[in-house]
Amino acid sequence: MEQIAIALVGAGRMGQVHGPNAAGHPGLRLKYVVDSRADAAAAMVARTGAGIASLEQALADPEVGGVLVCSTTDKHLEHALAAVRAGKAVFCEKPIGLDLAQVREAQPLFDGSRFLLGFNRRFDPQFRVLRQRLASGEVGTLETLHLVNHDPAAPPPGFIPNSGGLFLDFTIHDLDLARWLLGEEPCEVFAMASCLVDPEIGRLGDVDTARVLLRTPGGRLCVISNTRRSGCGYDQRIEAFCADGRLAAGNVGHDRVVALTDAGSRGAPILPDFQHRYADAYRAQIDHFAEVVHGREAPAVGYADGVAALALADACARSARSGAAVDLLVAP
Amino acid sequence: MEQIAIALVGAGRMGQVHGPNAAGHPGLRLKYVVDSRADAAAAMVARTGAGIASLEQALADPEVGGVLVCSTTDKHLEHALAAVRAGKAVFCEKPIGLDLAQVREAQPLFDGSRFLLGFNRRFDPQFRVLRQRLASGEVGTLETLHLVNHDPAAPPPGFIPNSGGLFLDFTIHDLDLARWLLGEEPCEVFAMASCLVDPEIGRLGDVDTARVLLRTPGGRLCVISNTRRSGCGYDQRIEAFCADGRLAAGNVGHDRVVALTDAGSRGAPILPDFQHRYADAYRAQIDHFAEVVHGREAPAVGYADGVAALALADACARSARSGAAVDLLVAP
Amino acid sequence: MEQIAIALVGAGRMGQVHGPNAAGHPGLRLKYVVDSRADAAAAMVARTGAGIASLEQALADPEVGGVLVCSTTDKHLEHALAAVRAGKAVFCEKPIGLDLAQVREAQPLFDGSRFLLGFNRRFDPQFRVLRQRLASGEVGTLETLHLVNHDPAAPPPGFIPNSGGLFLDFTIHDLDLARWLLGEEPCEVFAMASCLVDPEIGRLGDVDTARVLLRTPGGRLCVISNTRRSGCGYDQRIEAFCADGRLAAGNVGHDRVVALTDAGSRGAPILPDFQHRYADAYRAQIDHFAEVVHGREAPAVGYADGVAALALADACARSARSGAAVDLLVAP
Amino acid sequence: MEQIAIALVGAGRMGQVHGPNAAGHPGLRLKYVVDSRADAAAAMVARTGAGIASLEQALADPEVGGVLVCSTTDKHLEHALAAVRAGKAVFCEKPIGLDLAQVREAQPLFDGSRFLLGFNRRFDPQFRVLRQRLASGEVGTLETLHLVNHDPAAPPPGFIPNSGGLFLDFTIHDLDLARWLLGEEPCEVFAMASCLVDPEIGRLGDVDTARVLLRTPGGRLCVISNTRRSGCGYDQRIEAFCADGRLAAGNVGHDRVVALTDAGSRGAPILPDFQHRYADAYRAQIDHFAEVVHGREAPAVGYADGVAALALADACARSARSGAAVDLLVAP
Repeated sequence: MEQIAIALVGAGRMGQVHGPNAAGHPGLRLKYVVDSRADAAAAMVARTGAGIASLEQALADPEVGGVLVCSTTDKHLEHALAAVRAGKAVFCEKPIGLDLAQVREAQPLFDGSRFLLGFNRRFDPQFRVLRQRLASGEVGTLETLHLVNHDPAAPPPGFIPNSGGLFLDFTIHDLDLARWLLGEEPCEVFAMASCLVDPEIGRLGDVDTARVLLRTPGGRLCVISNTRRSGCGYDQRIEAFCADGRLAAGNVGHDRVVALTDAGSRGAPILPDFQHRYADAYRAQIDHFAEVVHGREAPAVGYADGVAALALADACARSARSGAAVDLLVAP
Repeated sequence: MEQIAIALVGAGRMGQVHGPNAAGHPGLRLKYVVDSRADAAAAMVARTGAGIASLEQALADPEVGGVLVCSTTDKHLEHALAAVRAGKAVFCEKPIGLDLAQVREAQPLFDGSRFLLGFNRRFDPQFRVLRQRLASGEVGTLETLHLVNHDPAAPPPGFIPNSGGLFLDFTIHDLDLARWLLGEEPCEVFAMASCLVDPEIGRLGDVDTARVLLRTPGGRLCVISNTRRSGCGYDQRIEAFCADGRLAAGNVGHDRVVALTDAGSRGAPILPDFQHRYADAYRAQIDHFAEVVHGREAPAVGYADGVAALALADACARSARSGAAVDLLVAP
Repeated sequence: MEQIAIALVGAGRMGQVHGPNAAGHPGLRLKYVVDSRADAAAAMVARTGAGIASLEQALADPEVGGVLVCSTTDKHLEHALAAVRAGKAVFCEKPIGLDLAQVREAQPLFDGSRFLLGFNRRFDPQFRVLRQRLASGEVGTLETLHLVNHDPAAPPPGFIPNSGGLFLDFTIHDLDLARWLLGEEPCEVFAMASCLVDPEIGRLGDVDTARVLLRTPGGRLCVISNTRRSGCGYDQRIEAFCADGRLAAGNVGHDRVVALTDAGSRGAPILPDFQHRYADAYRAQIDHFAEVVHGREAPAVGYADGVAALALADACARSARSGAAVDLLVAP
Repeated sequence: MEQIAIALVGAGRMGQVHGPNAAGHPGLRLKYVVDSRADAAAAMVARTGAGIASLEQALADPEVGGVLVCSTTDKHLEHALAAVRAGKAVFCEKPIGLDLAQVREAQPLFDGSRFLLGFNRRFDPQFRVLRQRLASGEVGTLETLHLVNHDPAAPPPGFIPNSGGLFLDFTIHDLDLARWLLGEEPCEVFAMASCLVDPEIGRLGDVDTARVLLRTPGGRLCVISNTRRSGCGYDQRIEAFCADGRLAAGNVGHDRVVALTDAGSRGAPILPDFQHRYADAYRAQIDHFAEVVHGREAPAVGYADGVAALALADACARSARSGAAVDLLVAP
C-alpha cells in the first residue's frame, strides 16, 4: 500500500496514543515528531522510528500529507491553522480551544480544509453498533438518551486550572455524542454540578460531578452523567430510549470469567481507563484519518462539530452557575 | 395467629391489589368492602368473602382495627381522616392528595395516628437489597443516584385530567425513593419535560416524558427518568454511584431462558406491569400494615413522607413550567 | 370454586411442601393428615387446619377425592396402590420405588388409574419456557442436551443407606427431564461416578459425583451432571444444543442487585435449595393435581414415566459398576 | 529490540494466522516462507515482506533461529524433526501426527529440543484467568470440569479423510485443556458419538457430535462436549466445579449492545470462528515463542504434551467404537 508521510505535533498523553497507531498504519509513515520537550520527543522516536523536526520543518516538507495535532489545548488552534495553511490534512485533538468566541472567529479560516476533530467515541465499535441499530428502526424513534461518562479517578489538581473545567474538558465528549445520536441539535441546556470527589477541585473553582439535561426542538431529552471518579473503572455507557423499546451499549469487561459461590457471583472489572476502553476507537479514528490523508474520505467530524460541542459545553457552564436552563436559540 | 378485622375502602385498581393480599394474610380478616359501585364491591366480595358496608358502618365496628384507603385520589384525605378519627390504623394509597397546601394543612390532624402511606417501592425486595448494600458501606459513600421509572404504556387520555399530572401522579414514587435513598432531603429541583408519547396528553396540558434533577445540601445529585411508554415493559431500575463503586438494581425478567444463534441472543422480556413487578412489594407492604394493625410496628412511611414527596412533585411541576431550578429552602 | 377434599399421607420433608400448597388451593380442601409420627402430624394440622386420620379412615371417606402420597420411599407403592384401589386420584412423590422389578410388576395394577408422579421439574416455569421454545423450532432440531443438577450440600450420611443411591434418588429427576425433552427414549446409558464430597458416602457404598451420558436411537446425546455439593447453591440448568443454535435455562438469583468496583462485579447468589428454586413448580404441580382430582385433566406424568426413569437410573448404576455402556434394547 | 530471523513452513490456513503475527512481532523477523504452492507462498510474501526459500535453504541459514511448522498434519513430524536437528527452536501446529505409535517412537528424538506445540487455548486470556482463579483457591479444590468446544460449521467433507477424525483433529484441543486444568493425568476415557450434522461425514467413517468423559486417579471427572456445527458461532466455554463453588469462562460477544422490547432482549452473536475468538491467544502464543527463540523461556507446551493428548484422543476413538471405557493404565 502506498504510504503518505505525516507529522506528530505533541508527544504527550494523546500523542502517545495516536503516534504509534499512525506509525503502525500501512497507509501512513510517521516521518516527524514535533515536541520541544526533548525527552518526550526522544521517547516517541524510539518507539516509532520517526525523526525530530520543528513544526516549520515538518510543514515545509512536501512529502508530509497530514499532521496530528496533539499539543496542549491552548496550542490546538494555532497548530491546526498552521497545518491547514500549509495544505496538510489535519487531525486535531479535542477541544479545538477553550474560548468559544475565539474558536468561532477562526472557523472561516478552516473552510474547505481537511480537518478531522478527535471525538474518538464516534469511532467506538460499541457505540457504532448502537447507532446503527438505532438508525435501523429496530426499536422505533428515539425519544430520550442517557450517556454515562465516569472517569476512573480524579486528575491531579494541577491539571484543573488549564483544563477549561469539567464541562469543556470532559462533558464535551458527551455533548458531541449527544449531537451524533439525537438527530437534532440541542436547543436547551441545564446543568447541575457538585464537588464531591476532591475538595481541592472545588477550591480551584471547578466541579467534579455533574448531571446535564439537553432538549431538542422536537422535545427529545438527553441526560449526561459525569464524575471524575467512578470507583469502578472507566464507566462508559449509552442507553437510547425509543418508542418501541430501548438500546443499551454496556461496558467492556476485562474478561468473561465469573465465580459463583454461596456468597454470590464475582466477575471481572470493566476496562480501567480510556487507553484500554477506546483502543479500538483510536485505531479506527487513525484508519479514517489515513483515508482523509489519501483523499479517499472526507473528515467525519469537522470544525463545525467542535464549535457546536464547545457552545453546548459553554452553555453547561453558564447554566451550572445560574441555576437556570440556557436557551441556545436566545443565548447561543 | 390472632386475626384483626379490617375494611377496604375502594375496590378499584389498587383495591384489587391490596384487598386480596389483606384477605390472604394470616393476621388480618377482610371484614368489609366499602365501594358505592355495586359491581366493584360485589366482585371483591366474591373474591375475598368480605361483607359490604358503608364507610360509617365499617368505622363504627369496634372489631375493625384497620382501614385500607384505596378510593380515588380526591377522597384519600377525607377517608383517611375519618378512619384516623375512628381510631383505626390506616393504610392509604399514594398520593395523600394533589393540593399541597391542603395536604400540609391537614398534617396536624394525623399527629399520633397510625398512618401508613402506600409507597410500595420501599418494600420491593430488589430495592431493599440495594439499600442494605448501600448502607453496608460496600461501595462507599453515596454521591449520585439514577432512578428509572418507565411505564409500559400510556394511560387512556381520560385518566389525565384528574391525575394531577405526571409529576404528582407518577414521579412522586421516584421522589419518595430518592428521599429514602439519598440520606438527605433534596433542597433543589429541576425538571425538563416533553410530550412525545401521545399528543392528546399534551393537549390536556400534561407531559409524558420527563427528566428530573435533585440536589441535596451535601451536593448529592439524583436523576429521575420517567416516561409513560417504554416499549419494553415496566422498566424499573436504580443505580447508586458511590465513592468506591456503584450498585445497580436491575429489572426482573419473565424467565431466564436465552436462545443463541448466529444472529445473536434472544432473552425474555422484563415483567410487563406494576402488578407483576411489585407483587412481592405489595405483599410485603400488607405484611407491614398487619404489624401496624397489631401494634407491633410503627408505620415505616408516614404522613410527613407524603407531604415531602408531594412538595418535591409540586416543585418539579413549577420547574418544568419556569425552566429554572426551584430552591426548596427559598420556595418550599 | 367447588372444593374437593384430599388427604396427605406423610408430613415429612415433601409433605411439608405439598400439604400447605394443597391446603391453600381454592379447588382443594386438605381434610386429613396421615402420619404415625404424632408431632409431624400435629405440626401439619396446626399449619393447615386439617384433621388427623389413619390411611384407612381417609380412604374410606367418600368426600376424599384425592391423596397426596408423601410417605417414605419404601411405602410409596403400597400407599399409592391403596389409594388407587379406593378410587382416589393419587399424587405420588418420586420415586415410585427403588426395586425396578417390583415397580414393573405392579404397573398393571395402576392401569386406568388417575396417578400423577411427582417429577416437579416438568412444572418449573423456566424449564417449561425452554421446552416451548425448543418445540417452536426457533433454534432447529435438538441434537444434544446438557442437564446440570447440583445439590447445595451433601445429605447427612444417615440418609444414604435407604436412599437407593445417587442414581435412583437424585439422577432420576434428570433422567425424567431427559425423556421429557429428548423427544426419543434413550437407548444407551453410560455413567462415571466418584466420591469426592464426603468419604462417608463412599464407605456406605454410594457415590456423590457423577456424569451420565445417554444416547437415543436417532443419535441424540445427553449429558447429566450431578453432585451432592455445589458450593454455590442449588445449581439447576438446562442447555439444549440444536441445529440452528442453542437454548439455555439459567439459574434464578436471589436478587438482581450487582455491585461494581475496581475489583470487579459482585452479584447475588442463586436460590439456595429445592424449596426456593422449585416453589413455583411445586405450586403448578398441585394446580395440575387439582385439575386431575376435579376430572378436568389427565395426569401429565404417569406410572409408566416412573418405570422408565427408574429403568434408566438402574442402568446408570449398572454402567457405573461395569465401566461399560448399557444397551437398553439388550438389557432393559 | 533485537530481532531473530525465523522461517514459516506452510502458508495455508494456520500459516496465515502465525506468519503475520510473527512478522509483526518486535523480537522476530520473518525471513523465509517455505511452501511448494507458489500462490500461497507469494501471498505470504506480499503480506509480510518475507523471502521464499526451500526448507533446506531456510534451515541452512545460521541467522534463522526458529521455525514455524504449519504444514499439513502428515508433514508436522518430518518438518519439526528437520528443524530440531538443525538446532532451531520449533513452533509446531497441533497435532504432532495422527499415528500414536509413530509419534511416541519419535519422542526421544526431541529430547532436549526447544519444541513448542501449538495448543493455542492455553494462551487464551479468558482461560488463563480461569486457571489462575482456580489455582488461587478462590472456589476450593477442583472436582469436575466441563469443556464446550463447538465449531460454527462443519468442514467440507473433503477435509475429513485426512483429518484423523473428530477426536484426533478436534477433541484433542479439549484433551490438552483438560490435562492443563485437571491437575492430574486422566486415567480413564469414555466417548459417545453420533453423526447428526452431515451424513456425508458418517459415510466417510467419522462422527460430528461427541461427548467424552475423563476420570483422573483422584476421581475428578471431566466432560467434553464437541460438535462440528453449533448454529451459534464458535462456542468455547469452560466450567470448573469446585468444592466451594464454580468458575465459568464464557464466550466473547461481538459487542455489548442489547435491545429490549416487549418481545424480549436481543444481544450480539458471539465471535464466529477461531480466527476471531483466539486472535489474542495466537498472538500470545507467538509472544511466548519469541521468548523461546531468544532463549529467555522454555516452551510451555512440549512434545510430551502432544503425545499425551494424542493418546487420550486415540482412547476416545477406541471407546467410541467399543462402547466401553478405556482404562489408560491398562491400555495406554
